[in-house]
Amino acid sequence: MIIPKGFQFAGIYAGIKKVKKNDLGLVFFENQVKASGMFTKNRVKSPSVTYTKKVIKKGVRALLVVSGNANACVKDGMNDIKNIVNTLSKKINTFPSRIAFASTGVIGVRMPVDKIKKGCDSLTQSLQNKSYKDFHISMQTTDAFDKFSEKCFDIFGTKVNMLVLGKGAGMIAPDMATMLIFIFTDVCISQDALDKAVKNAVDNSFNIISVDGDTSTNDMVLAFASSLAGNKEIEIDSPEYIIFYENLFSACLEVAKQIVRDGEGATKVIELRLTGAKDKKDALKALKTIANSQLVKTAFYGNDPNWGRILAAIGRSGVSIKEGMIDIDIAGMPVVRKGVEAKGFSEEKLKKIMSSSEIQVDIDLHMGKGKAIFYTSDLTMDYVKLNSAYRT
Amino acid sequence: MIIPKGFQFAGIYAGIKKVKKNDLGLVFFENQVKASGMFTKNRVKSPSVTYTKKVIKKGVRALLVVSGNANACVKDGMNDIKNIVNTLSKKINTFPSRIAFASTGVIGVRMPVDKIKKGCDSLTQSLQNKSYKDFHISMQTTDAFDKFSEKCFDIFGTKVNMLVLGKGAGMIAPDMATMLIFIFTDVCISQDALDKAVKNAVDNSFNIISVDGDTSTNDMVLAFASSLAGNKEIEIDSPEYIIFYENLFSACLEVAKQIVRDGEGATKVIELRLTGAKDKKDALKALKTIANSQLVKTAFYGNDPNWGRILAAIGRSGVSIKEGMIDIDIAGMPVVRKGVEAKGFSEEKLKKIMSSSEIQVDIDLHMGKGKAIFYTSDLTMDYVKLNSAYRT
Repeated sequence: MIIPKGFQFAGIYAGIKKVKKNDLGLVFFENQVKASGMFTKNRVKSPSVTYTKKVIKKGVRALLVVSGNANACVKDGMNDIKNIVNTLSKKINTFPSRIAFASTGVIGVRMPVDKIKKGCDSLTQSLQNKSYKDFHISMQTTDAFDKFSEKCFDIFGTKVNMLVLGKGAGMIAPDMATMLIFIFTDVCISQDALDKAVKNAVDNSFNIISVDGDTSTNDMVLAFASSLAGNKEIEIDSPEYIIFYENLFSACLEVAKQIVRDGEGATKVIELRLTGAKDKKDALKALKTIANSQLVKTAFYGNDPNWGRILAAIGRSGVSIKEGMIDIDIAGMPVVRKGVEAKGFSEEKLKKIMSSSEIQVDIDLHMGKGKAIFYTSDLTMDYVKLNSAYRT
Repeated sequence: MIIPKGFQFAGIYAGIKKVKKNDLGLVFFENQVKASGMFTKNRVKSPSVTYTKKVIKKGVRALLVVSGNANACVKDGMNDIKNIVNTLSKKINTFPSRIAFASTGVIGVRMPVDKIKKGCDSLTQSLQNKSYKDFHISMQTTDAFDKFSEKCFDIFGTKVNMLVLGKGAGMIAPDMATMLIFIFTDVCISQDALDKAVKNAVDNSFNIISVDGDTSTNDMVLAFASSLAGNKEIEIDSPEYIIFYENLFSACLEVAKQIVRDGEGATKVIELRLTGAKDKKDALKALKTIANSQLVKTAFYGNDPNWGRILAAIGRSGVSIKEGMIDIDIAGMPVVRKGVEAKGFSEEKLKKIMSSSEIQVDIDLHMGKGKAIFYTSDLTMDYVKLNSAYRT
């Protein structure tokens, strides 16, 4: 288990969730860390998002996470946060304004403030730097398995550690959908370089996945850098930046794919790769439409190489196309050539390959140089079962 | 059964579908009719759409419909249509260019041209003006029941007949998604007035429904007016226009709702009414996002008044909102007031009401005067079952 220097973790059951599973988590930062974040673009957002967006600009000493309650669409959300972090700040001896706050769970129900404040006691007492496991459980809701990535890499002779912990299984769509991602690293890096690396890594990982097209009120990616690794501070233009970015990006992509794999009820991860769009924007637009098409997603669930549905999704996405120029491969097999079924296409053969848990789809529009990648899951009966009974 | 004057109907099994159910239909127009149409906006479209779009501009004598095969994403689609209508034109003694052609069904498989040409023989022999039933069956695919509306109304002393026949159960979204709608009337009306009435009626009925957000390659609404009722020709500015339009609109809305009700696997129709948006465009944008949200649709399936999902959908739709001003009622019960749960909201009470097969949702954004209505269905396990096994 890799734990970057300067971070202590704790997670307990405070009585927020109905089932007895950790629901209150704390990460304590031994020194004040540099922080960077990206937040949901949903216009209906939790005060947890509004609050933490401000906090991380000033330097942070701790991160408190509530799961089981989103603290969204409630009257007293902001006051409740202030009340809670105020209590916690005394126990960890810092300013309330140095505590980042995240929440996830049911919308529209007020947080059990007293339970959480009471929980802060045992929480601070169980802080430790040997394991992040208790904390990781405490940030999860319907997750079927842990999503994380650990990296230990070398920056010109100095060992650097990075840990990415993720949460999210449904309501995933680009722009931070019910997804909490926390990145901890002991690297020494300038604020500019950290901001740039986090933005790019998120845009190429968590922002190109979709489970159901719904974005949430609460989601955020937060990165914390403790500077304790001992490396020379990384600047945007330094060669060290590239090493750091590559590791960050790779860790984020790993966790992003884990989230798609755990898409509620999902049985497979579909990697959509599109080239030949007019531009990058068109490429992403076409892929998002395919990734969120119920008909495409159900076809993949049924191992049905129904390429007509993929073509129809491209057609309604509004991007520039010439129908007679589109090529599609599924799992490396030519399926569509120039807008019609490829010669030698064998539905039976492809059906078998499609039962695999990972499928790659390659699309070439032959219109220009725009390209993009997107990850989605299949749409299954279990998805409907889970989401029609989420609160019942 | 109301049959407008001047129309003869036929429908037979020509061997296009695997199951023995009518799959080839013909409507013969005793005189040349005025026609008007609206077509799918999907950029991947069947040659049937391209072809018929041209034909209806010139005046039409017949409508041929193939079901079970979409004639889309195939190499010879346009040639096959020409070949077929050429054969038919000789049997009904008209020009090939006077025959409108529609198709629906599986994409990417060539039409069985010989079977269809052979079918044209018995088709022309079974034309009749007593029933449209055989024809109506021949235009359907996965429909669970017939969708139609019959109107007989009076225009200043003259009796006018109107018949709207619909097809469609999945892949329904605004802008003509796998939906065939044929409107037959014996009214006498100017081309301008017919075009305007059809466009407005469609925009306020078939273009505000959604089952799964997917639009298709083939869909069209075609209206045919035989002028045989004997009324004075209706012009755009005449009072007769309003009478005609009201009847047309009401018939179209009836059939549109029937299509939502038959949304694949759907158990209920949800009528979404939004007021107080910045403008009409915002109102429609917000409603479309709600109507296509998998999480909202599964919640309705589960009779779960999960208003947080509705709020989150509004939030990510990108329209102008102030979260603290949004009101939502479900089935007439206050659920959200000023962005938070309404006082006295009873989840248990609402759950019971939500098990009804028709539910109205009223949303007020309190931002301006924009308003709109939209119809959608719930997302069920049967939807997934049906659509993951459509071709298998």
